[in-house]
Amino acid sequence: MNKITQLFNIKYPIIQGGMVWHSGYKLAAAVSNSGGLGLIGAGSMYPDVLRNHIQKCKKVTDKPFGVNVPLLYPNVEEIMQIIVEEGVKIVFTSAGNPKTWTQWLKEKGITVVHVVSSSKFALKAQEAGVDAVVAEGFEAGGHNGREETTTLTLLPIVKKQLSIPLIAAGGIATGKGVHAAMVLGADGVQMGTRFAMTVESSAHQSFKDYCVQAQEGSTFLTLKELAPVRLLTNDFYYQVQEAYKNGATIEELKELLGKGRAKKGMLEGDLVEGELEIGQIVALIDKIQTVNDVFNEILEEFNQSIQKEFVF
Amino acid sequence: MNKITQLFNIKYPIIQGGMVWHSGYKLAAAVSNSGGLGLIGAGSMYPDVLRNHIQKCKKVTDKPFGVNVPLLYPNVEEIMQIIVEEGVKIVFTSAGNPKTWTQWLKEKGITVVHVVSSSKFALKAQEAGVDAVVAEGFEAGGHNGREETTTLTLLPIVKKQLSIPLIAAGGIATGKGVHAAMVLGADGVQMGTRFAMTVESSAHQSFKDYCVQAQEGSTFLTLKELAPVRLLTNDFYYQVQEAYKNGATIEELKELLGKGRAKKGMLEGDLVEGELEIGQIVALIDKIQTVNDVFNEILEEFNQSIQKEFVF
Repeated sequence: MNKITQLFNIKYPIIQGGMVWHSGYKLAAAVSNSGGLGLIGAGSMYPDVLRNHIQKCKKVTDKPFGVNVPLLYPNVEEIMQIIVEEGVKIVFTSAGNPKTWTQWLKEKGITVVHVVSSSKFALKAQEAGVDAVVAEGFEAGGHNGREETTTLTLLPIVKKQLSIPLIAAGGIATGKGVHAAMVLGADGVQMGTRFAMTVESSAHQSFKDYCVQAQEGSTFLTLKELAPVRLLTNDFYYQVQEAYKNGATIEELKELLGKGRAKKGMLEGDLVEGELEIGQIVALIDKIQTVNDVFNEILEEFNQSIQKEFVF
Repeated sequence: MNKITQLFNIKYPIIQGGMVWHSGYKLAAAVSNSGGLGLIGAGSMYPDVLRNHIQKCKKVTDKPFGVNVPLLYPNVEEIMQIIVEEGVKIVFTSAGNPKTWTQWLKEKGITVVHVVSSSKFALKAQEAGVDAVVAEGFEAGGHNGREETTTLTLLPIVKKQLSIPLIAAGGIATGKGVHAAMVLGADGVQMGTRFAMTVESSAHQSFKDYCVQAQEGSTFLTLKELAPVRLLTNDFYYQVQEAYKNGATIEELKELLGKGRAKKGMLEGDLVEGELEIGQIVALIDKIQTVNDVFNEILEEFNQSIQKEFVF
């Protein structure tokens, strides 16, 4: 038995990352209905909006789904209360200390997973009592670690020390990617970029189309002094690089970033001034598909891959 | 049959990177004698020194071995002449245009491989007529690409477009790593860091001991304005970071780097002022072994890994 399918009572150990501005109930339900684990991304939702998405999700799927909560979110207490009230059984936490909420959630019968970018924080999460850890490499989209450890390096290091189930994230988008992650010690995978590029993602069509055109070198990790984030190169990205060149202070970087840039870019489709978060593996994916087609493709490739012989 | 073992007439598709200050005849011969492909690193050798290493290598192994030549090397004509005169049959080129030397070498019956960090340059190398390509990810030690594409991302993108054999490099140091790289489409692997950390590497013992202690976050890619290089954090590395903070120009960075820092660090063991190049996977390796022990460990882990079942 696979530890991740068992933990969440799902068919395939494939989890959709709870990305800001992508992961409403439509995407989460489509993933869960396809046999994976869908996550609603609370990071871009007001509490009321989140409640609404959870309620709608329950209406369109009877399969398990969860909510991703960045722990630095300003309304985190309210968010957690809603999660419990609405009977959500799975919570992925990120961007914060796993000690703060893990026990509280677990006492309510909720399965808790924490996202980390180093073995040090993986062990802290395990100590805090989480049920599994997502180890996310440098190539991942959105916010990630300052140490720049890639998935290929991070997985075996975390695996060596961790005793709870391990979910790999960053750079994984295909059946071969899933297989490679499992070879390196992962029990399951979390994919963001591949699901961001689906019909069911709530991101703007212009953003999705821009992702289709992306190549190697179209994304970079930047703003390390604030919170490191991987961005598609665009006018805003080059403004940030220009600011660095001119020796911008942290305050000046904060001011340049301002508020609402991610919403502007990913939800509203402003490709010039928006903050466009996506993983490096965007360069491999050249079409927008339905979640169901994504699952079919990944499973077919995975099943071919595990039958291939590599003896020498 | 494996394409890489066939191409080089070796037993295992495992190549030792031709690293500066590590890869003399002792390391190359040990790797070739263990069934892999050893490479003498011409990048840190005067022409006479290289000739001497090739001659010694021939005395201690009757197995195939090669020479790695950075094409920006000042004495490259002389180096190539020596390679032909000494009857070396395999050349890995890097850091330069593969069109310049590939046909010349192939006319002399030499097998040519070029190291790249993007699919664009992989295709250019193929067009230039090389026999195989090494695709090297962001996590690799030494000099690598400006696009920061990780091995996990790079391999499937290159594989999709390339028709000649593909060798993976960057972040690979174990049997599971080899297996994962092959799952992602590689026909073989090139390892630098794992072989840098062997008894037979000609690097200074202090450098090797410092590598043993390295953790996640102990290496960073830096000096992107000159030639991007992955360095262990030490006093020199922090001097470079300080220079960046103070808005150093390219000229000032060049002056700070100066000449001979890599030799000072890796060969002479100056851990304070030296430039200490190594891959990110250094964090996974916690001992110095003989090349033979490295091969035994990798092959055992690989054989276990390919027998593991991942069906779900």
